[in-house]
Amino acid sequence: MNLITVVEQATFLPTFQASIEIMAVLAFALSGVVAGMRKGLDIVGVCFVAGIAAFGGGTFRDLFLDRRPFFWVEQDYLIWSVLGVCALASFVLSVRHAELTEKWIQIPDAVGLGLFSALGAQIAIEQGYSPIIAILMGVFSSTLGGVLRDVFCNELPKAFSDHRPYILVAVIGSTVVQFLAVLGLPPTFSLLAALLVSTTIRIMAISWDWSLPAWRQ
Amino acid sequence: MNLITVVEQATFLPTFQASIEIMAVLAFALSGVVAGMRKGLDIVGVCFVAGIAAFGGGTFRDLFLDRRPFFWVEQDYLIWSVLGVCALASFVLSVRHAELTEKWIQIPDAVGLGLFSALGAQIAIEQGYSPIIAILMGVFSSTLGGVLRDVFCNELPKAFSDHRPYILVAVIGSTVVQFLAVLGLPPTFSLLAALLVSTTIRIMAISWDWSLPAWRQ
Amino acid sequence: MNLITVVEQATFLPTFQASIEIMAVLAFALSGVVAGMRKGLDIVGVCFVAGIAAFGGGTFRDLFLDRRPFFWVEQDYLIWSVLGVCALASFVLSVRHAELTEKWIQIPDAVGLGLFSALGAQIAIEQGYSPIIAILMGVFSSTLGGVLRDVFCNELPKAFSDHRPYILVAVIGSTVVQFLAVLGLPPTFSLLAALLVSTTIRIMAISWDWSLPAWRQ
Repeated sequence: MNLITVVEQATFLPTFQASIEIMAVLAFALSGVVAGMRKGLDIVGVCFVAGIAAFGGGTFRDLFLDRRPFFWVEQDYLIWSVLGVCALASFVLSVRHAELTEKWIQIPDAVGLGLFSALGAQIAIEQGYSPIIAILMGVFSSTLGGVLRDVFCNELPKAFSDHRPYILVAVIGSTVVQFLAVLGLPPTFSLLAALLVSTTIRIMAISWDWSLPAWRQ
Repeated sequence: MNLITVVEQATFLPTFQASIEIMAVLAFALSGVVAGMRKGLDIVGVCFVAGIAAFGGGTFRDLFLDRRPFFWVEQDYLIWSVLGVCALASFVLSVRHAELTEKWIQIPDAVGLGLFSALGAQIAIEQGYSPIIAILMGVFSSTLGGVLRDVFCNELPKAFSDHRPYILVAVIGSTVVQFLAVLGLPPTFSLLAALLVSTTIRIMAISWDWSLPAWRQ
Repeated sequence: MNLITVVEQATFLPTFQASIEIMAVLAFALSGVVAGMRKGLDIVGVCFVAGIAAFGGGTFRDLFLDRRPFFWVEQDYLIWSVLGVCALASFVLSVRHAELTEKWIQIPDAVGLGLFSALGAQIAIEQGYSPIIAILMGVFSSTLGGVLRDVFCNELPKAFSDHRPYILVAVIGSTVVQFLAVLGLPPTFSLLAALLVSTTIRIMAISWDWSLPAWRQ
């Protein structure tokens, strides 16, 4: 078992983590493009907001871990990918109707949420942080981008206010990673399991319109 | 005198600073709970906003001083305390009326303001920064949490706009710490003096409705 | 040529960069004063917003490069200058009409934009970052202050939404610096050229009301 883990970490894990990261980044960038277009921003503003949504959470994670250069500097193909997504999405969405987007943006966003929360918790565990910190790191790196996207668009963050479990899904995903790490399972396994659990819960929550209790205003 | 200072710093000061910090953190968390509930957020959103209010200013201070791990990572009982405050306050406030809260939140908030501004200035002085930087550090670490709380709730920060002296109180508290440090008084004394001065001014400002001049809009 | 560059960097460049920086900081502070007064903030709130506008972009640049102390700590005359600008502008603007300001704030702001984008890109180039990162650094350090100023004033950032090229001007200025650096021209020359190009474009865009395309909301 231990041998398998070592082999996996040496060869498979970096590639696996990198492909997770690029998918999550693109999903969040797309959510930024849609948010920016809804506010009637110009094309440069849309790219800026897409960048905040895509890189905000991970940049906080890197600040937290005092990791330099930031992940988007080290892997600058991520920046080019986000710019590509902005160009493509702007083109497609200006031709087709914008209403179409609200539904299909939620699937990549759910995948991004699952991916980034699992990855954030995994990195914190590898660095030797305590469970509560690992879970918080998963939560921040997966949700802060979307929260900042809404803050910069002058909106009350949807993650706080639409009452569908979103941050809670990140908590669950991070907790799964932490729990499986305590059991000694290999990182690739726990990342995949957490991704599956959290993305499924999120999609179920969207499909069946689950909601968390709110207070009277 | 010098001997007293040394003894104090070695034994009393860390405990004293830690208990100051936990009280300030809880007071700010409570202000975040109230703010989040007013905006009708779900329970996870309320916890997130409480966390921003409680840890925002101190996290900026740690980023500024390049101190890792952040104070809430090193003392993770602070996180548990904030979660406890959120659970307790949510329970109490959903049973009783929310109007009750506006008045009594201002007392712990005034204490938190006094505590955090004194502590921020003291840490900067110990690190050898110039007076203006020590004062700014006191101001940022005590007010940025509340400002970010309002920004994330999509409100104009109350600290800027309600015209009651708030940031100014932090300036006064930090200046008292800086002034007493120049006079060579021991840190515990200057922390207590600053806390007393700034909290008293803040409470007087609230009680008698003092206000700063604004411009016509 | 190489000798000239060395001599320039040793003697002229630091002074030149410092004077660029102070002008840009004051221009942005002034934009913060105007924004804060429009929102009816009290005088301390106005100073806070002016500080965010003046130091926000550069602080992000310093966090990015992991440079401590922050530039406004090392050069604390910048803080005094911003406080001076706040006091002076508050006095002048409370005597004269506020409408006057919208027009004349745009000239120093255009200069600040040109200066900070050129400087940000130049610093990133000196540190050996790739072209895309140098350009992004120019863009962030020149525009993030203004964006944060609007976010903290609870407004949709003008840089995203007024459809006049603003962030795009920063992209152009940074690209000029990067391009001339590749050609091997001395930094002072490329800084001046970028400043001239970007400030001119910005002023032309304001004068003739150029606008970028937006999407239907």
